[in-house]
Amino acid sequence: MQAIVKEKRAPGLKVTTVPKPSPGPGEVLIAVRHAGVCGTDLHIADWNAWAEGRLRPPVVVGHEFAGEIVAVGGAVAELRTGQLVTAEGHIVCGHCLQCRTGNSHICKNTRIIGVDRDGAFAEYIAMPATNVLPLDGIPTTVGAVMDPMGNAFHTVLTADIPGSTVFVVGCGPIGCFAVGIARAAGAAKVIASDVNAKRLALAKQMGAHVTIDATRDDVVRAVLAETGGEGADVVCEMSGVPSALHQAFAAVRLGGRVQLLGIPNGQVPVDFASEIIFKGITVYGVIGRKMYETWNQMRRYLSAGLVDPRPVITHQFPLAKIDEALAAIRSGDAGKIILEIA
Amino acid sequence: MQAIVKEKRAPGLKVTTVPKPSPGPGEVLIAVRHAGVCGTDLHIADWNAWAEGRLRPPVVVGHEFAGEIVAVGGAVAELRTGQLVTAEGHIVCGHCLQCRTGNSHICKNTRIIGVDRDGAFAEYIAMPATNVLPLDGIPTTVGAVMDPMGNAFHTVLTADIPGSTVFVVGCGPIGCFAVGIARAAGAAKVIASDVNAKRLALAKQMGAHVTIDATRDDVVRAVLAETGGEGADVVCEMSGVPSALHQAFAAVRLGGRVQLLGIPNGQVPVDFASEIIFKGITVYGVIGRKMYETWNQMRRYLSAGLVDPRPVITHQFPLAKIDEALAAIRSGDAGKIILEIA
Amino acid sequence: MQAIVKEKRAPGLKVTTVPKPSPGPGEVLIAVRHAGVCGTDLHIADWNAWAEGRLRPPVVVGHEFAGEIVAVGGAVAELRTGQLVTAEGHIVCGHCLQCRTGNSHICKNTRIIGVDRDGAFAEYIAMPATNVLPLDGIPTTVGAVMDPMGNAFHTVLTADIPGSTVFVVGCGPIGCFAVGIARAAGAAKVIASDVNAKRLALAKQMGAHVTIDATRDDVVRAVLAETGGEGADVVCEMSGVPSALHQAFAAVRLGGRVQLLGIPNGQVPVDFASEIIFKGITVYGVIGRKMYETWNQMRRYLSAGLVDPRPVITHQFPLAKIDEALAAIRSGDAGKIILEIA
Amino acid sequence: MQAIVKEKRAPGLKVTTVPKPSPGPGEVLIAVRHAGVCGTDLHIADWNAWAEGRLRPPVVVGHEFAGEIVAVGGAVAELRTGQLVTAEGHIVCGHCLQCRTGNSHICKNTRIIGVDRDGAFAEYIAMPATNVLPLDGIPTTVGAVMDPMGNAFHTVLTADIPGSTVFVVGCGPIGCFAVGIARAAGAAKVIASDVNAKRLALAKQMGAHVTIDATRDDVVRAVLAETGGEGADVVCEMSGVPSALHQAFAAVRLGGRVQLLGIPNGQVPVDFASEIIFKGITVYGVIGRKMYETWNQMRRYLSAGLVDPRPVITHQFPLAKIDEALAAIRSGDAGKIILEIA
Repeated sequence: MQAIVKEKRAPGLKVTTVPKPSPGPGEVLIAVRHAGVCGTDLHIADWNAWAEGRLRPPVVVGHEFAGEIVAVGGAVAELRTGQLVTAEGHIVCGHCLQCRTGNSHICKNTRIIGVDRDGAFAEYIAMPATNVLPLDGIPTTVGAVMDPMGNAFHTVLTADIPGSTVFVVGCGPIGCFAVGIARAAGAAKVIASDVNAKRLALAKQMGAHVTIDATRDDVVRAVLAETGGEGADVVCEMSGVPSALHQAFAAVRLGGRVQLLGIPNGQVPVDFASEIIFKGITVYGVIGRKMYETWNQMRRYLSAGLVDPRPVITHQFPLAKIDEALAAIRSGDAGKIILEIA
Repeated sequence: MQAIVKEKRAPGLKVTTVPKPSPGPGEVLIAVRHAGVCGTDLHIADWNAWAEGRLRPPVVVGHEFAGEIVAVGGAVAELRTGQLVTAEGHIVCGHCLQCRTGNSHICKNTRIIGVDRDGAFAEYIAMPATNVLPLDGIPTTVGAVMDPMGNAFHTVLTADIPGSTVFVVGCGPIGCFAVGIARAAGAAKVIASDVNAKRLALAKQMGAHVTIDATRDDVVRAVLAETGGEGADVVCEMSGVPSALHQAFAAVRLGGRVQLLGIPNGQVPVDFASEIIFKGITVYGVIGRKMYETWNQMRRYLSAGLVDPRPVITHQFPLAKIDEALAAIRSGDAGKIILEIA
Repeated sequence: MQAIVKEKRAPGLKVTTVPKPSPGPGEVLIAVRHAGVCGTDLHIADWNAWAEGRLRPPVVVGHEFAGEIVAVGGAVAELRTGQLVTAEGHIVCGHCLQCRTGNSHICKNTRIIGVDRDGAFAEYIAMPATNVLPLDGIPTTVGAVMDPMGNAFHTVLTADIPGSTVFVVGCGPIGCFAVGIARAAGAAKVIASDVNAKRLALAKQMGAHVTIDATRDDVVRAVLAETGGEGADVVCEMSGVPSALHQAFAAVRLGGRVQLLGIPNGQVPVDFASEIIFKGITVYGVIGRKMYETWNQMRRYLSAGLVDPRPVITHQFPLAKIDEALAAIRSGDAGKIILEIA
Repeated sequence: MQAIVKEKRAPGLKVTTVPKPSPGPGEVLIAVRHAGVCGTDLHIADWNAWAEGRLRPPVVVGHEFAGEIVAVGGAVAELRTGQLVTAEGHIVCGHCLQCRTGNSHICKNTRIIGVDRDGAFAEYIAMPATNVLPLDGIPTTVGAVMDPMGNAFHTVLTADIPGSTVFVVGCGPIGCFAVGIARAAGAAKVIASDVNAKRLALAKQMGAHVTIDATRDDVVRAVLAETGGEGADVVCEMSGVPSALHQAFAAVRLGGRVQLLGIPNGQVPVDFASEIIFKGITVYGVIGRKMYETWNQMRRYLSAGLVDPRPVITHQFPLAKIDEALAAIRSGDAGKIILEIA
C-alpha cells in the first residue's frame, strides 16, 4: 500500500510503498480516508532534536485520521466492518497506576502511532479496538481532526466554562478549536490573541467575541479592559511562546485557571511569586485527550452541531503532496491541513 | 406608600398604605419598579399550613424585585443613589458555620423578605447593601425575576452541563429558565416534560430540543429513546410532583445527577435500591441561590445575552391587581408574572 | 475440586465436587486461600426474591477471596504464578459509556462472580487478569475481605473526610470498616450507631469516638449533641433500615453529604422537602468499588498500616462448614466471617 | 501601651509606647497574650525591597496572635468580652468579585495587620469582629501560630490527601505544620526534605515517615525510591528555593499536584514541557487562608487533638526582646518563635 514513511535518521519524508498491515487479536484494520497533518509531523520531517531522540525509523508517520473498518481481528465484539471511525493515537498499557486510576492520557508506557509505531499516513492502519471510536454520522474530514480537536476539548472542558470569560492565547488550529468549544460551552466572553491576522480572522469565525493582534496591541491591557479590570477566569495557553506564557499569567484573574497546552522550547523564567502564588491561581498541564471522557464529550458536541471545526480546515492535499502540506504549515498562515487518502 | 400586605392570620392579601421605610446603617432604600409574583406569594395569600407556621402578620409580601436606589444608609461604600439594582431576598446571619464556609444559601438564621420581614410588593424597600446587586444595564423587568431565575442557575450550573444531555422535569417558570440556561451552558440535548401544552411551548421557545407531554407520552421511555437508551446525564426536577420525581430517578443515566428543586407535598415513597443506590447516582437538594456565585454567573449570562428570560414573562399587572396575578398563577397556564410598580 | 454450589432453584447450598477451571486468554487461575462470606451469599442460600430473579443455577457461589496465582493464560503480561492476589468480583464489559468514562463500577453489563458466573467458594477460580490485584504483602485473610472493605472505602473516600465529623449508621462489617477508614482519613470525630451491643463494641474498637445504641438512645439527638447542634458533615448509611435512613437525613448538617450503601427492602417514604431539599444536602448512591481507584487507595491504607480490618473478622470456618458460617451471620452478632480454603 | 513599631523608612524596629486603640463599630478590642514572629516581620525589620514598597510607617508590626476580648464595639452580636480568640490578619473588602465568590483570601483590597495597619506586637489590638475566631479551649500559645498554621492547612487540605504520598519540600515552621497535617489527614506516606538537620528532626517529630537531607542526598531519587518509582501524589513546596522548586516538579508523579507556598526571590527558569505539561500535573498557588473554611478545619483538628503544633514552637521571648527573636529566625535553626505579651 502507499504510505508516507520516515525512512532514515535524517530530514525528509518519503512517499513509498509498504506492506499492508493485518489486524491482530483485539485489533481492527482501517482503510484511511482522511488524515490530519500536525506540527509533530513537521518535526519528524525536519528531524529535530525531539524526533531524533524518539523515533526509530523506518516508521509510517501520521497520527490523526478517520476511515472505514475493513477487517476485524479476533476477540473484538463491539466493532464491525463498514463502520466509519476515528481513533485515539495514544496506545496505553492498561496496567500502570495512571491507567488504573482513570488517567491513561498520562500512561508512562504510551506508544503513539506515527511516532513509536506505524501511523496513519497510509492506505491502511491496524489499531487496537479499544482505541477506535465510531463516527456515528460525523464526516471523515472532521473525524480526521478529532485528535487535535480533542486536545482543545481537554484544554477547555477541564476548566469551568459556563458563564466565564475565556482567553485563548494563540490561534493555531487547536487554539481556534478551543475558541469554538468555549463558545459552545457557554463562555460569557471569548477573547483570542495571535500575531497572525489570518489566524485571528479564523478565531473570529469560530466565535471569538474579541481578537487581539499581539503585534500591535498590549495584550494584557486589552484583556483587562475587556474584563472590567479583573482578568479572564480561564486562560488557555495554546502557543508555547514565552512572551505569551507571561501574558497568560498576567491576564488571568485572581484565583483563575491557566491551562497549558502550547509547548515552549527550553526554559522560560517565571516569577512564581507575582505570576502564580500571590494570584492564588491553578495551572494545569494538558497532554493528550482523556480516555475516553474527552472523546465522548467531543462526539456529543459534534453530533449535536454545537461546534463545527470545518472552517479551521483550510487546506486539503492528496497523500503524495505531503511536502506541500508541510510547506503550508511552515507558512504560518494555514489553519488545519488534512490529507485526502481515499 | 402603597403596598400589598398580609394583614391577619387568615386567607387574603390587602393593597393598602404603610409607612415608607428608611435605610439603617449598612442599608439602602430602593424604589421598586418591577416585582415578580411567586408560588410562595400564593401560599401566603391562601394561608396554607406552611404560611400559618411561618408568618407573623402584618408583613409586606413579595421577595422578587428590581428598582432604583434612592437613599444610602451609613457605612455603605459600594452603592450609590440612582443605580438600578435587584437583590437577594435571603438575609443571612454571616456568623454560622454555613455562612462562614461559603454556604450562606443554607444559613439557618435566614430571614426572607416578604416572609419574615417586610418585602418588595411596595413602592419602597430597605435592603442590606450586602444583598443588593447592580443591574449594570439589565432591564428591571428582567431584574425582577432574577431571584427565581437564580434558582434555575443554581440548579443547572451545579451540575456538569457542557456536552451533557439535560432533562428538565416540569416547565413552570423556573423549569423554563432552566431549559434556557442549560442550552446556553452547552448542553448537547435538552429534553423537557410537563402536563401543560402552553408550558411545553414556552420550554420549546426557551430552547428545548425535545418536549414530552406527560399526559400523553411515557416520559421515561421517551427520555431513554432520546438518549440511546442511556438516560439523561443530568435531571433537573422542578415540579415537586411525586410521579415526576420517580421519572427523574428512572430517566437519569447510571452515575448521573438529579437536582431537586421542586417541593413535593408530604412524603413520597422511594425505592432507594433501584432508584438511587444501584444506579450510583448523586442527588442534590437545591435551595435558594449561592451567595453570590450564582448571582455573578447570572449577571454574566444576562449581560452577554446568552439567555433571555423575557419569553417566560407572560403577564404583567399593576400593584393593585395582585388578585388577578394570583388567579393567573392558579390557572396553571401562566409563565412568570410580574407587577409593574413604578 | 471442592466447591460450594447453588445447585437448584430452591433454598440451600451444597458442598460438592466440580471440575477445576482452566484460565482462558487474558485470565489467571487462582488457588483460593481465604474467602469472605457476605449477606449476598445468605440471600442466595435462602433463595430470596432477588436471588430467584438473578441466578441461573448451578453456580459456584462466593465473591470475596484471596489466593495464589497457579497458572497464567495467554496475553497476560503483568501477573505471574506464585503471586498472592485478591480480585474485583465485578467483571465489566469495557465498552459501555460508564466503562469508557471511568465508571466501570456501574457498567450495565456487569457480571458478578458467585452470582452470574462461578465464584470463589472453591479451591480454584479463573479470573480476568484485569480484575486481579497483587496483595504485595497484605495477608490473604485481609485480602479475602477487601471486596466489602472496598465498599467501605468507596463510601467514605468519596466524601471530604479530613477534619469532618462522620456519622456511620449501622455497624455491620462494612460499617465497622468505614469507622476505621474515616479515622485513618482524618475525621475529627467519628460517631457510630447500631442496635447491637457487640457491633457497637467492634465499632469502638475500630476507632469510633462515640457509639450510640439505637435501642436505647435518641440517635438524632445524640448526633446533634456531639456536633454542637450542627449535625454531622458526612453520614454513611450502612444499614438499609428505613428508620436509620431517616436518622441519616436528620443527623446530617445543612449542606452535608449522605452516602447510601445499605439496601432498604422495598420503598421508604421520604419527605424530600425537609429531609433533602431545604437542607441543601448531597446524596450519593454507593455501589461496588471504583475500578481501580478504590483498590489503589485501599492497598495503600493497608500497606501503610493506616487501618487494620482484622478486629472485624470475628469468625473463621472451613469450606465445608458454610452452614455454620451462614448461621453466624443470621445471629446478627458476627462481624466479618471468612472461610479458610487452603 | 507597649508595642513594637516600625517608626521610619529604614532598618530596625522599636519597642515603644503608643496610644491604646479603641474598637469602632463592628470591631472588638483584644488584649494580646501571645504573638508569632514571622519571616515577614524580619523583612520589615530589615526594610527589604518589598517592605520599602509596601509599608507606610509608623505602624505597629505583627500579624499572628491570640488574646482575650476586653471590649466589644457597636453592632457586634456574636462575640463577648472574656473570650479567648485569635484572628485572621487579612482584612478584606467584602465587595470585590473574589470576596463575593468565596475567595476572600485573594481579595485585591486586602489590608494586612502589622503591614498595612497597626498589628499585634502590642498590648492591645482592635480587630473587625468578622476576622475574630474564638479559641474554644485551644491555648493562646497555639492560637498565636494559627495564622501560619492556617497557611499549612490551606496548602495540604486543598489537595486530596487520604491514602496519598505527600512530599513536603522545606521544613521551616509551615513545612513542619504541613507534615503533621498531612499525617492527620490520612497520608499513607509523608516525606520531608530540608538542608538543616534540626528542621528535619522537627519534621520527623511532627510525623514524617521519611526525611531527606538535601545537602547529602539526591532528593528526587530518594522520593522516587520511596514511591516505587512513581513520584509523590502531592508535593507541598514550602521553601521558595529555586532548586527545591525543580525537585518539586521532578518528584511529583504523572497527574499529581504541586502546591506552591514558598516564595522564590525573582525569576526561576522552568522547562514547562517536561516539568508541567507532559506530566499532566496541576499546580496551585497558595496564599493566605481560606476565609473561613481553613479556620474551621484547623479549629476542628486542634480541638480533636489530630495535630499538635507545639513541638514546632522552639522559642518564646518577651515583647521587649524582639531583636533576639529576629536573630533566632536568622540563625535558620529555629522552628516557630512566639512573643509572650501578657
